Amino acid sequence: MTHNIPDIVIGRLPIYLRELRRLQNEGNKMTTSSHELGQHLGISSAQIRKDLSHFGEFGKQGTGYHINYLIEQLRQILHLGTVWPVALIGAGSLGTALAYYDGFKPRGFEIRWIFDNAPGKVGNEINSMVVQPLEELEDTISNNKIAIAIIATPARAAQEIVDRLVGSGIKAVLSYAPLHLTAPDGIHISYSDPVTELQRMSYYLES
Amino acid sequence: MTHNIPDIVIGRLPIYLRELRRLQNEGNKMTTSSHELGQHLGISSAQIRKDLSHFGEFGKQGTGYHINYLIEQLRQILHLGTVWPVALIGAGSLGTALAYYDGFKPRGFEIRWIFDNAPGKVGNEINSMVVQPLEELEDTISNNKIAIAIIATPARAAQEIVDRLVGSGIKAVLSYAPLHLTAPDGIHISYSDPVTELQRMSYYLES
Repeated sequence: MTHNIPDIVIGRLPIYLRELRRLQNEGNKMTTSSHELGQHLGISSAQIRKDLSHFGEFGKQGTGYHINYLIEQLRQILHLGTVWPVALIGAGSLGTALAYYDGFKPRGFEIRWIFDNAPGKVGNEINSMVVQPLEELEDTISNNKIAIAIIATPARAAQEIVDRLVGSGIKAVLSYAPLHLTAPDGIHISYSDPVTELQRMSYYLES
Repeated sequence: MTHNIPDIVIGRLPIYLRELRRLQNEGNKMTTSSHELGQHLGISSAQIRKDLSHFGEFGKQGTGYHINYLIEQLRQILHLGTVWPVALIGAGSLGTALAYYDGFKPRGFEIRWIFDNAPGKVGNEINSMVVQPLEELEDTISNNKIAIAIIATPARAAQEIVDRLVGSGIKAVLSYAPLHLTAPDGIHISYSDPVTELQRMSYYLES
């Protein structure tokens, strides 16, 4: 049942989960509907029902979705039953901001290792973690069976880092470096580049 | 010719531009092809040709695209002829990292105003900008005709900030706050939430 689901569907599940958590935190109701979710998220209710139907029957016509139950189902589907330990490469200002970000752990991830190659940064403590030298990258990744890494290095360093991460067993990479990275099949790479986001919006603006 | 182009096509143009810039910086050739671009970006050459064909004829069968020319065309299409001034709301660690990020200006954007409401932050200098109090938000946005803002506040503050920004004339918002924001038609909102990116990848990982 969960085979060959389009990546774009998978990409919406975290958005649904985030919105359900918000409703849960508001705490004034037990159920919601595809209509209500869709209105909040700017997604059609039919799309939401279709997306969720890939994974089973989570709601009933008329009564909608039980918020707590749907959250638990989405957490299982997205493999968020445990907190994933994450390695961070790059201890510059962005890397430091990520290391201090308190939004990861409640949602399933925890940065537990930080690497950099600058002598002025290695050995420093950031949010109770000691910045490790890049030479220790491979051993640390493989010895701790780390599956997920975040890259916050300059663009020129990122592809080599990806190659080393993948060679050490990393399966998923979130990159803040502003370039496309290549990796073997089966390795997942996501990108965060504020400028491409701004540029896709400036298209619509009058200059 | 440039009407009703799907947003997903617009979203790929900055990726093409970024890759073309990389080729330009490498400096060892004048032309490229949809095949070469596609190989680097993991996008089919047919898709690239189709995307670009929305905007005109940029290459010739056999000779491909002139890199410099295509860059200039994409810059025009995306309205990057001038540097867009940007207001940043939130001077925490992420906001500070964004304020120091040197990747904006070469690609068409410049953070020129920073706002926060914390007494310990207002008046501080970050990358030669003085953090302004939030009370000055509306006047600053409207007096300077600022069109683009970046939100790096906690989630709970973000919707109110969007409302105030839109009321002052902002047309495009890049939000780092982990929630869906609502805005009137015609206002463009992009999101950057590392956790939704990590969650869409953890789906594919064995837990």
